Parts: sequence; structure tokens; C-alpha cells
Amino acid sequence: MLAERQSFVTHLECSMTGDRCEADQVHGLSRVGRPLLVRYDLAALAAHLDRDALERRDTDLWRWRELLPVRQTRDIVSLGEIETPLVPLPRAGGSNVLVKDEGRLPTGSFKARGLVMAVSMAKALGVTRIAMPTNGNAGAALAAYATRCGIKTVVFCPDDTPEINVREIALQGARVWRVNGLIDDCGAIVAEGAKQGRWYDVSTLKEPYRIEGKKTMGLELAAQFGWRLPDAIFYPTGGGTGLIGMWKAFDELEALGWIGPERPKMFAVQAAGCAPIVKAFDDGVEHAERWENAETIAAGIRVPRAVGDFLILRAVRESGGKALAVGDDAIERAVVQAAKQDGLLLCPEGGATLAAYHDALAAGLVGKSDRVVLFNCATGLKYPMPDDSRTLDRHAPIDFDAL
Amino acid sequence: MLAERQSFVTHLECSMTGDRCEADQVHGLSRVGRPLLVRYDLAALAAHLDRDALERRDTDLWRWRELLPVRQTRDIVSLGEIETPLVPLPRAGGSNVLVKDEGRLPTGSFKARGLVMAVSMAKALGVTRIAMPTNGNAGAALAAYATRCGIKTVVFCPDDTPEINVREIALQGARVWRVNGLIDDCGAIVAEGAKQGRWYDVSTLKEPYRIEGKKTMGLELAAQFGWRLPDAIFYPTGGGTGLIGMWKAFDELEALGWIGPERPKMFAVQAAGCAPIVKAFDDGVEHAERWENAETIAAGIRVPRAVGDFLILRAVRESGGKALAVGDDAIERAVVQAAKQDGLLLCPEGGATLAAYHDALAAGLVGKSDRVVLFNCATGLKYPMPDDSRTLDRHAPIDFDAL
Repeated sequence: MLAERQSFVTHLECSMTGDRCEADQVHGLSRVGRPLLVRYDLAALAAHLDRDALERRDTDLWRWRELLPVRQTRDIVSLGEIETPLVPLPRAGGSNVLVKDEGRLPTGSFKARGLVMAVSMAKALGVTRIAMPTNGNAGAALAAYATRCGIKTVVFCPDDTPEINVREIALQGARVWRVNGLIDDCGAIVAEGAKQGRWYDVSTLKEPYRIEGKKTMGLELAAQFGWRLPDAIFYPTGGGTGLIGMWKAFDELEALGWIGPERPKMFAVQAAGCAPIVKAFDDGVEHAERWENAETIAAGIRVPRAVGDFLILRAVRESGGKALAVGDDAIERAVVQAAKQDGLLLCPEGGATLAAYHDALAAGLVGKSDRVVLFNCATGLKYPMPDDSRTLDRHAPIDFDAL
Repeated sequence: MLAERQSFVTHLECSMTGDRCEADQVHGLSRVGRPLLVRYDLAALAAHLDRDALERRDTDLWRWRELLPVRQTRDIVSLGEIETPLVPLPRAGGSNVLVKDEGRLPTGSFKARGLVMAVSMAKALGVTRIAMPTNGNAGAALAAYATRCGIKTVVFCPDDTPEINVREIALQGARVWRVNGLIDDCGAIVAEGAKQGRWYDVSTLKEPYRIEGKKTMGLELAAQFGWRLPDAIFYPTGGGTGLIGMWKAFDELEALGWIGPERPKMFAVQAAGCAPIVKAFDDGVEHAERWENAETIAAGIRVPRAVGDFLILRAVRESGGKALAVGDDAIERAVVQAAKQDGLLLCPEGGATLAAYHDALAAGLVGKSDRVVLFNCATGLKYPMPDDSRTLDRHAPIDFDAL
């Protein structure tokens, strides 16, 4: 990570209109209010680096530095962004099912990928104050990285955000407010403050760099699968940055000549109680309506409205995949199944991907021999678990047959 | 990990008498009731493998397979044992202080290293039922690995073990009993059951393989530091398997010619409320007395009596290090300091190493230019955090100046 690095960023462009923006400046959404995408000189990169050279590097996120926006090593704000392992799920999934265990990243979730990039770029561009709406894990990652480089941070979360998330955000140096509303209500407060010039808004896809960090999930998968992608990816979809990011990563890798034109089927997994992308997919429309009265135990995907809806839907459709909704009961059963059968503790959103995989298998959308990746987006330790312990009095006679 | 592997195990020997035991059989303590150590044919290994070949391998724990006891790849029960990152702690520690973040391992703690080895060997040797006393994290790791390969598991923990640990043990398929006592009281129940032939006892150092897994901490450090070890290691010491294991690893690496004779100063860190090793160190004796009325917020190092006490004390003394005790207040302050200053969430035991480092620096036991490693043995997410959040009513006018 400390080796001299070079980014091949050329410019940013609007995901809707293709309008071009300068790199190395502070940006929010594009002129038409859509996400900006970072573009690279991939031809020059291909001449500079090949797969073999890349494979000799340390496997952390910064091995991909030429495909990331940070230009100077000194701007990297790192907490140890390791490559996450693929853990087989032989009993609860099947012999070809792998879990990408994103809970191993700093602050225990895949949000670290996006936020390490957003914060490093904010540092590079001289930002001193940041705000964000969060369902929990993104705020925790933001707080950790921003604190690490001295950027002041304010985080707004729904008032029923998991207690552990609220506490870790505060302990890691951010100011955190519980708001009586959902994440888009929190987002409105952040947007208003940004408009007043009080802070930089790092909401999902409202700044251009979180997606670049999340893209590394796709880059890692390509390398881990020996430059042949899996057949299907089940991705828990709230704001959808990771799904959009992986799709972008695959295109960049193909342009580099590192993978072929084959793509995995992308399955966007949502909770039945908050499934705007599923509804839009089924309705055949390009944009999703806000989901009213959103409710699910999988807080991370309780996102009633996603600014990148059209990008998510486009990727899922192009891939031949589908948007799938699973109920909270199925999510809970899947978490228990993975833990009791394979010893792997998933977060609820990770459980949702296992539940959706079973549904997809039953519906014939994937086959048993397909090589499948499920994203466990956070450590299961952050979520409530039942108490199945018993008590034993060591001073009384112990009935060993009953233990 | 799937490549064909070869272990260079030759035999086991008693850590006290040097008496030899056969490998590939189920063992507990030695004939004189002391831990057994695994021995390898290091000369043959040196002829078979060099550092360069090792460095070309994937960096996970199984890159060290020749120095580990598992003979057959099919017996490896893996959940993705990645090499843990070294995270700088520039503000709360100093410019030469690195945290080895063991919370990134399966089940969120360094206990995974020992238990993946113990369970893989148990599987290889045909064990079908296991029991263990635990302060929490070891039980969680045992449950996950044992469940993964179908070994039935019973875990006994003090009744005030952190709630999250008790729950994850149960969810991951083990039966868990809360006992009105401390970990050695739990250990007595496990020992009695083992005597009755009801299960295999995998208590710390009572079976020979957990130490081999923990040894990989030392192997990794050597590779991560470019085959020159750090100047000092601060290690939270309960049963002390990791400290003993690292010390063993360094000797094996030197025998292989991969490192020189230099060793880090080893600092065994305990809580002031449970510091039997510190007392024995200060008293200049070889064995530690049981610590009565043990009490500390750092549950992982609340171990009143360690069966490997003489091995811990020997390593610390040989290294020119020291056993240090820190109070719970200092532990709590250190956790807050690392989080608020460097964005890194430590567990209490990890906080203890930071507090002890500050004490050692003040006492001149280490210098500011010494390259220091602190072990954060588990993810900080498993432990209580204060709630510093505030509430905001989005329906009322918002005073942005106050946010």
C-alpha cells in the first residue's frame, strides 16, 4: 500500500446524460441530479499493468489502485481493507455456493469499501466537514475513516437503527442524531445542510467515489475466480451502490482484456416489506416509486427510494438476472440455517440472499451446478440473536447425561 | 488451500519433561499433567520450502501448512482464516505502533486460529464429541468449526459471560451452559466429563493443537515485517496460548533459517483485577498461584489459573519483556482513545494492551522508536459501548447551527 501509486482517472461523467465533469474537484450529483461515474484511461492502464503483475501484489483493496480515484498514497485513509474471503456454504447453500464474507472489513461491513474511498477523496480535495444519512453500517464506516483523518462528521439515522450501530458511530468520533423517520427522511436533512454549505453530502451515489470503492467487490471476485466470473451473484439491495459498482467493474475489466464478455446473472435481493426495485423490475419500468411504510428486520436494505434505481434495474436486466423479494420469516430462517448447518453467522441482509437463492433455485432461475456468490454484507455479530443457553449450578450434583 | 499439502510433524513432546508421544493419536495433557508441544522435522522442511516460495502463496493461515499438524487437506475445516492486517495507531499509540486486528478472523476473534486447528485435528482423529470451558470467544469459535464438520459440542461459561458470546455459541449449533463460577470452575466440569469418557476436552493447552493454530500469529508477524520481527509485542494474557505459540513460532522460524536470533520483548498484559502471571513474574517464581476473586471488564483475560503459566513466564523472561497489569479504568480510557483519535474500535483486551504500552513507554521499558505490535484479539463490536446519540424531530424546525 505504501508503494508509489498512479490512478488512471481521466474525468467524471453523468450516468444519465454522459455529460463530462472535471476530476479532482468536489462534486455531488450531476447537473440533471443523477449520479456521476468516474472514468479511467483503460487503454493506458492495460499498457501499464497486466493481470500477472496485479496478482503478485498484496491482496488488499489498494492492489487495484490504478482503477481507483485516489491519486496520492498520502491521501489514503486506511484501516486495513483486506480482500474478503469466499466461504463455502455446503449444507445450507450447496456445493457450488460461496459466501463473500464482507463482515471482515473495517467496522464490520462492506460499507468500509465505499467510505474509505469517499473519505480519502474528501481528504484529497480538502473537505473538512461531512454528513450522511444511514441505516447504521455506512455511518459506522464513515465515522471511523473521517475521524482517522480529522474530518468532522454528522450522521443522521432512523430512530430505530440497531443500537450497536448508533453507539459505534458515536464512539468512533462522529456526532449522531436519531431521527423520527426513514433513511430518505434523514437524507433530506443532510441535503438541506449541504445546500446551506454546512457540510459535504456523502449519501449513497450523491458523491462519485463510494461506488468506486464498492466496485472492488467485483474486481476481487474476478481475481478470486481466476478471471472467470461466477454464474450468479445474489446481492442485498438497498441503495444498490455495490451492484452498480460491480457491474461497472466487470465492464472495466473487460475493457482491460482481463475478463471476457460473460457476466453473472445479477440478483437484486430486497425484503418483502421494502421492495421498490422488485416492483419496478416486475412492472418493467426504469425508475422505482418510493415504497411507503417500509418495514423489515434487515435494516440495511430498508431503503424506500434509491437515487440509482435506473442503474440497478439496468444492470439486473442486462445480466439476465432478476429482482427478488423475501419475507422477514424467510430471512430469519436462512440466518439460523447457515449458522446451525455450516457454522457461519450471517447478517439479516446476508440471510436474505440465501433465502432468495433458495427461491431462485426452486423457480429454475439458477441451477444446482451454477457457481453462485451470496453477499454477506456485514458481520452477523451486529444483530440480535436468540438466547438458547441454560444454567448449571456447579455446587449441585451434575447430571452429565443431561448436558 | 486446496493444493495438496504436507505436514512435517514428527511427534509430540511434554513441555515439562521432554517425554515423547506419538503424533496422529488423540492426546490430552502429558503423563505429568503438562501441555504437549508438536514437533516438526524442520531440517526436512527447510530443504522442501523457502521463504520465496512461501511468499508466493495465498496469505491465509494455510500458507503455513508444513508447520501445522493437519496432514490431509480434506480434514481442514475452514471458515476463511485470512491473514489479519496491521493497522497503524498513529495518534492513540504513536508512529511506530501497529495493531494486529484479530477481530477480522471467523467468529470475530483470534480464538479462531486455535480452534480451527483443534477441530480439524479432532476431525482427522475421529473425535465426535467435544467440550470446553470458555469466557466467550473460544466457545464461539469452537461452536462454528465443530458444527461445520458435524462434531457435537458442549460449552460451559461463567454466568456473566457477555450475552453476545453466549448467543452466538448457541446459534452456531453448540449446547451452552451458564455456570455460577469462573472459567476454571467450568474447566473442572469439562475435565470430569472427559474423565467419564463423555467428550474430548479442548480446554486451553489441554489438547496439543490450539497452540499450533495460535502460533500462526507469530508466523504472520515475521512475514508481515519482512522477516525481521518487531521490537516489542503486547499480548493480552489469559491462558497465554498465543504468547507461548508465538514464542514457539519464532524458534521454528529461526531453525528454518528464515529469521535471525533476535526476538521481540514479549509483554504479557493482564487486568489488575486478575493478574496471576504478573504476580508470579514480580515474585520471580516459575508457577502462578490461582488469583482469588478475579474481576475485570476484560472477560477474555479473566483467567485465575493458567495451565501453561511456566511457559508464559519463561517466554516473557527470555525475551527481556515483562508482565504488566492495567486497571479497568485505564482499559476503558484506551478503548475510547483509539476509537476517538484513530477511528479504530478495540475490544477491552485490546484496550488493555494500549494502556500497558503507555505504561511501558512511561517506565522506559520500550522507546518511542521501537516498532511495537499490540494485539486486538477480538472485534470491539462484541462489547458494550456508551450511547452518545441525540434525537432530532424532523417535523419540528431544525436548528442547523446546533447539529
